[in-house]
Amino acid sequence: MQGFPWIETTNIQEVRSAVSSWRFAGERIALVPTMGYLHEGHLSLVRLARARARRVVVSIFVNPMQFGPSEDLSRYPRDLNRDRDLLAGVEGGIDLLFLPAAELIYPEPFQTAIEVSGVSEGLCGGSRPGHFRGVATVVAKLFNIVLPDVAVFGQKDAQQLAVIRTMARDLDFPVEIAGGPTVREADGLALSSRNTFLSAENRRQALVLSRTLFAARDLISAGQRDGETIRRFLRETLPAEPGVKLEYADAVDAESMAPLFRLRGSVLLAAAIFVGATRLIDNVRIDVPAES
Amino acid sequence: MQGFPWIETTNIQEVRSAVSSWRFAGERIALVPTMGYLHEGHLSLVRLARARARRVVVSIFVNPMQFGPSEDLSRYPRDLNRDRDLLAGVEGGIDLLFLPAAELIYPEPFQTAIEVSGVSEGLCGGSRPGHFRGVATVVAKLFNIVLPDVAVFGQKDAQQLAVIRTMARDLDFPVEIAGGPTVREADGLALSSRNTFLSAENRRQALVLSRTLFAARDLISAGQRDGETIRRFLRETLPAEPGVKLEYADAVDAESMAPLFRLRGSVLLAAAIFVGATRLIDNVRIDVPAES
Repeated sequence: MQGFPWIETTNIQEVRSAVSSWRFAGERIALVPTMGYLHEGHLSLVRLARARARRVVVSIFVNPMQFGPSEDLSRYPRDLNRDRDLLAGVEGGIDLLFLPAAELIYPEPFQTAIEVSGVSEGLCGGSRPGHFRGVATVVAKLFNIVLPDVAVFGQKDAQQLAVIRTMARDLDFPVEIAGGPTVREADGLALSSRNTFLSAENRRQALVLSRTLFAARDLISAGQRDGETIRRFLRETLPAEPGVKLEYADAVDAESMAPLFRLRGSVLLAAAIFVGATRLIDNVRIDVPAES
Repeated sequence: MQGFPWIETTNIQEVRSAVSSWRFAGERIALVPTMGYLHEGHLSLVRLARARARRVVVSIFVNPMQFGPSEDLSRYPRDLNRDRDLLAGVEGGIDLLFLPAAELIYPEPFQTAIEVSGVSEGLCGGSRPGHFRGVATVVAKLFNIVLPDVAVFGQKDAQQLAVIRTMARDLDFPVEIAGGPTVREADGLALSSRNTFLSAENRRQALVLSRTLFAARDLISAGQRDGETIRRFLRETLPAEPGVKLEYADAVDAESMAPLFRLRGSVLLAAAIFVGATRLIDNVRIDVPAES
C-alpha cells in the first residue's frame, strides 16, 4: 500500500507513532482534514499547511455523523487514486495520508457528541440538524489522534470554520485554526466536490450563487447598511434563476453567525441552493468600516 | 505565591510550558483533577499518580458547570491552605498545582458542551440533569490544557469514572484513565469533602449508606442473582434510617451503568441519599462469576 512519498495508513497507532517521532524531533505538524474527492480548493489548504509546518498530515474521511438520514452520504463522490495523484502534485508534498474506516472512527457503542451552540443553529445548521455536532465530534477526534500544531479548513465552509474555532477555543485544544480562502473557477463558481454532480445546464444555472453574493457585496461596498435589504435581495434573486431552489440566504456576523440588521464589522453573506438535486453553498465576507 | 515545593499557577500558559518542558525531557505526566477540600481519598489518588508518572499535576477547581441551579456550588467547602498542607505531606510530593479561576475556564461566551449518552442518564445523572455534561466538558478542557499521559479519578464517583472513560475512548484522547479505590473511615463511611457538613447525629445516620451497600454485596456473594431483589432491599433499607431520604439506589452494569435484572459480570451497587441537608453518594462493585 506504500509506493507514495508519504506514510499512508488506516491505523490510529501508526498516525500517533509517526507524529510523535516528528514532535520528538521538534517539528511542527499541520493537519488538513478532508472528505476526499480533492480539488484545487483542498490543494490550496495543503499548500497553506505546508507553509505553516514542517510536517503535513492530510486525512480523508467521509464522516457519516455529519450527514442526515436523507442526505447524500452514500453517493458522496470518492476516488482515492485521483486524490493520491493530486496530492503527489503538490509542491513539497505531504508527510502522512490518514484513511480511517468508519468502523475505526465510530466503533460500537459510540456515545459521545460535542455540541457547539450559538454558531451551529442557523444557516446550514438550520437545514441540517446534527450536522455540526457530527463535524465538531469528528474534528475533535482528529485533533486528539494527530495532535497538530495547526489545522487548516476552507473559508468556503465558513460556518464549519466558526464552529471549529469556537470548539477549539472553548475546549482549550492546543491547536491553531487557520482558514484558507475559497478557490473559484474563472467564472466565479466556488470549487466543491459536489460540483461533479452538475449537468452542463445545472453548471450554468449554479453561477447565480456566486454572482448574487458578489452583487450583494457590491451593494454593501456602495453604502448599503441594512441587513434586511441585503437578505431580501439574496432571497429574491437566487430562486429567480431557473432550476434553482433556495435553501437559505443570510447576512450574518462572520464570527458569531448571528443575523445582522445593521451591517457592521465583519459581515458574512452566505447562501445554500439546490441546483437540480445538487446542494451547493457559498459565501463572501466583507469588512464594513465603522460609521462616521 | 511560590514557597511550595511545586509550581503553583492560575495560568494556562504556565501549565502548558511546564508540561511541555517535562515532555521534552521524556517524562510521563499524570493529572489528578479535584474540586479541593482534599481528604485521604484524594491523597490516595495523588499517590497512585505518583506511582504511574514522573510528574504529577493536581488541579483544584470547583466546576460551576457540573452544579445545578439549586445545588450547593456556593457552599461547597473550600480551604486552599489546608489543601496545600495535605499535598505537601504526600511522599514524593507533586510537581504542579493548577488553580484556575472560573473566568479562565469559562470565559464569556462559552458555547461548547460534551454529551456522553448511555452512561450519563441514570443514577446521579437522573437527579442532576446536566451534571455529567459539566463533568465531561471540564475534564476535556483539563486534558487539553495538561495533556497528561494518565489521569486518575476516584471509584467513589463510579458513574463519573464511566462517563470519563467513555468520553476519552470515543474522542480518542491520548490519555489513560485510571480509577483509584474508595477510601473509607474505619466505620465504613466513604470519605467525601461533603462529610464536613454532617452533624454528629447525621454522621451516625450516614453509616446506613455503606452498611446497606455492603449488606447487598453480601447477599450477592451468598448467591442472590435477582437485580430487583437487590434494588428492593436497597430502596427499603436506606430510607428506613431516621434522618435519611433516598435519592436513588440501583444495581447496574459497572461499565454501561445499565440497570441489571439478572446480576452478572461486573455489578455496581450505587446509591445517593440525603442525610439532613447533605447529599452523599457511595457504591460498591462486585464481580459475579458466570453461572455454571
